[in-house]
Amino acid sequence: MKDTLLDAASVKAETDRFLAGIFEERIDQADRVSVRYGDLWRSARRLVDQGGKRLRPYLVHAAYRAFGGDDPDTALQAGGAVELLHVALLIHDDIIDRDTRRYGIKNVTGQYMEAYAPRLGSPDEVRHYANSAALMAGDLLISEAYRLMNGIPDVPPARRQKAIDFFAESVFLVCGGELLDTESAFAAEPLSALQIAECKTASYSFAGPLLIGATLAGAAADQLEKLQEIASNLGIAYQLRDDVLGIFGDTAVTGKTTVGDIREGKRTFMVEEFYARAAARDRQAFDRVFGVQGLSAGQYHQAAGLIESCGARAACEERIQQLGQRAHELIDKLAIDGAYKQVFDDIVRRTATRVK
Amino acid sequence: MKDTLLDAASVKAETDRFLAGIFEERIDQADRVSVRYGDLWRSARRLVDQGGKRLRPYLVHAAYRAFGGDDPDTALQAGGAVELLHVALLIHDDIIDRDTRRYGIKNVTGQYMEAYAPRLGSPDEVRHYANSAALMAGDLLISEAYRLMNGIPDVPPARRQKAIDFFAESVFLVCGGELLDTESAFAAEPLSALQIAECKTASYSFAGPLLIGATLAGAAADQLEKLQEIASNLGIAYQLRDDVLGIFGDTAVTGKTTVGDIREGKRTFMVEEFYARAAARDRQAFDRVFGVQGLSAGQYHQAAGLIESCGARAACEERIQQLGQRAHELIDKLAIDGAYKQVFDDIVRRTATRVK
Repeated sequence: MKDTLLDAASVKAETDRFLAGIFEERIDQADRVSVRYGDLWRSARRLVDQGGKRLRPYLVHAAYRAFGGDDPDTALQAGGAVELLHVALLIHDDIIDRDTRRYGIKNVTGQYMEAYAPRLGSPDEVRHYANSAALMAGDLLISEAYRLMNGIPDVPPARRQKAIDFFAESVFLVCGGELLDTESAFAAEPLSALQIAECKTASYSFAGPLLIGATLAGAAADQLEKLQEIASNLGIAYQLRDDVLGIFGDTAVTGKTTVGDIREGKRTFMVEEFYARAAARDRQAFDRVFGVQGLSAGQYHQAAGLIESCGARAACEERIQQLGQRAHELIDKLAIDGAYKQVFDDIVRRTATRVK
Repeated sequence: MKDTLLDAASVKAETDRFLAGIFEERIDQADRVSVRYGDLWRSARRLVDQGGKRLRPYLVHAAYRAFGGDDPDTALQAGGAVELLHVALLIHDDIIDRDTRRYGIKNVTGQYMEAYAPRLGSPDEVRHYANSAALMAGDLLISEAYRLMNGIPDVPPARRQKAIDFFAESVFLVCGGELLDTESAFAAEPLSALQIAECKTASYSFAGPLLIGATLAGAAADQLEKLQEIASNLGIAYQLRDDVLGIFGDTAVTGKTTVGDIREGKRTFMVEEFYARAAARDRQAFDRVFGVQGLSAGQYHQAAGLIESCGARAACEERIQQLGQRAHELIDKLAIDGAYKQVFDDIVRRTATRVK
C-alpha cells in the first residue's frame, strides 16, 4: 500500500479518478441550473483531464505519508484541492497572459471563443466574453478547492483548520507573485526573479502541498519549518530549470518553443545574470533582440549564444545545483523514515534535472 | 447586547472595525513581500471602506442571534467573510461589465488604470493590466473570505464545516448566475430573469448569509429549509425592486441614472412582462429604443411610459408584494422568538419597499 501510494503513476491515477468524481457531481448540479452552466464546468474539466503530472498532489501524498499519515482518502482529497487551485490559477494566468491554449488544447477562454464566435460580432467582444467565462471558471475552481479542503475526511478538525490556513497562505503568496511578475514587465523597480519565483512558484506548487500534507499527518512545528525551507529551495530550483529549458530545452522533448521567453523579454534569473556579467556591447546586442516581436531564428541563436558565452547559463546551473544541495541537506535533517527521505531526495533530483 | 447587535448601524460599525483589522494585517504582510503588493490590498480596501450598508453581515448576525447564537465574535467573523466575498464578486463583476467605478469612487480596475497609465503606452494595455490586477484582487478576497470562515472562533467544528459548505454553495450559484446573466445578452435561449435572480442575487446575498448565521447557531435542518425558501423570496423581491428603481427610481435618492438599464437593454422581469403584455406596435416602438447607445431623454421616457402603460410595472410591483407576503408567512413558521420574527419581517419590508 505504502509503495503504491508513493508511486507517481498511482497517485496520478487515483487523483484523476477522484477529480473525475468531483467534476461529475458539479457538472450534474450545474446542468440542473442550466446546461449552459454545465458547459462551463465541462470546459474546465477538459483542462483538468488534459493536464498535468499531478506533481502537487504527489507532494501532498509524499509529505502526508512521510509524517505517518495512513488514510489514503485524506491525502487524496487534499491533493485534489491543490490540483484544482493550480488549474484555477492557470485559467486566470492565461487571461492575464492573453493565451488561448494550454496543455496542447484550447483553454477555457479558447473554448468559449469558439462557442461565442457565431453569436457575437467583433473579435474583441468574443474575446471579452470568453475571458469573462474563464474568469468565472477560475473563481469556481478556487472555491471548489476550498470546499474540498473543508471536507477532508478522517482528520482531527484542528489539523484540517491548520492545513486550510497553509492553503490560504499559498494563495496569498501566489497572487502577490502573479501581480509582481506581471508588473515586472513595466515596473520602475521590479522584484528580482528569485523573489518572484519564491512567491509565485515555491509558495503554492511546493510549500502549500508539502505543508498541507505534513500538517494533516500531524507533523510538529519544527518539521513544518524545515519543509518550508525545503519547498523554498525546491521551488526556486524548479523555476530556474524552467528558465533554462525555456531557452536551451529540446523542443521535441519539452513541447515548447525556445523562442518564446526571449521574444517576450522574460526577465528570468538567467537574464539578470546575463546583464550582470556581459560586456557593454554584448548587452547592447542582446537588447536589440530581447523582447522583440517576430524574432528570427538567427536572432534567437544570437541571444542564446550571448547568455551562454558570458557564463549566465552556467551560473544558473550552478544555482540549481546549490539549491538542490541545500534541499538534500534539509531533507536529511527531517525526523522521518529513511525510505521517505529517499522519496523527497528523488523529488529534488527530478526537479533539478528534468528535461521537460 | 441583543438590541445593539441587531441594530443595523451597530453591525455596520462592528463589521467595519473587524474588516479594518483584517486589512491592516494583510496589508502589512503584503508590504513585506513588496510595497507594490501592499498597494493591491490598499486598493481593495478603499472599495471595502467606501461601500456598503453591510446588509449581508447584518443577515448573518440576525440569523445567528435568532437561532440562539450568543457569541458576537462568531457572527462578526462570518459576516466579515460574506462581505469580503461580496466585494470580490463586485470586483470581478466590474471586469465583466467593463465598469471602472463603484460606490462613487474608482474601483480596483479604475485605480490601477490611473497608476499604470504613465508607465504603459496604449489605453488597451493600461486597461488589460489594470483588469489583471483587479482579477488578482478578487481572487485574494475570495480566498481571504474562506480563510475567515475557516477561522470562525468559538463554534463546534462540525457547525463551522457545514457553514463553509453553505458558503461554497452560494459561490457555486452566484458564479453560475453571473455566467448566465452575462450570456443572456446574446444567448439563443436565455434563462428567465427570475431564474437568474434566484442564482445571482438570492443565493449569495440572502441564502448564504442566513444559512451561515443559522448553522453557526446550530439551527435544525427543517429551519434551514425554511430559511432557504425565505431567502429565495426575499432575494428575488430585492432584485425586482432593483429593476423598478433602475427605471422608475428617484435619481436624487438612488444616486443612479434611470437611463442605464434601458440603454443597456437589460432583460429584467419587468421587461419580460412588457413583452408578454404589450401590443405588437408598442413592442416595435420599444425595440427601437431598448439597448440603444446614446439614448435620448425623450426615448427613455417613451420606453418607461410603454412599460408603465401596459401594466408591466404594476405586475412587477404585485410580484414583489407576493414574494414579500410569502416571506412573511414563512418567517411566521420559524421556531424563533417573536422579537426575531419582527427583525426578519423588517428586513423583508425594507427590502420590498426600499427607495434606494
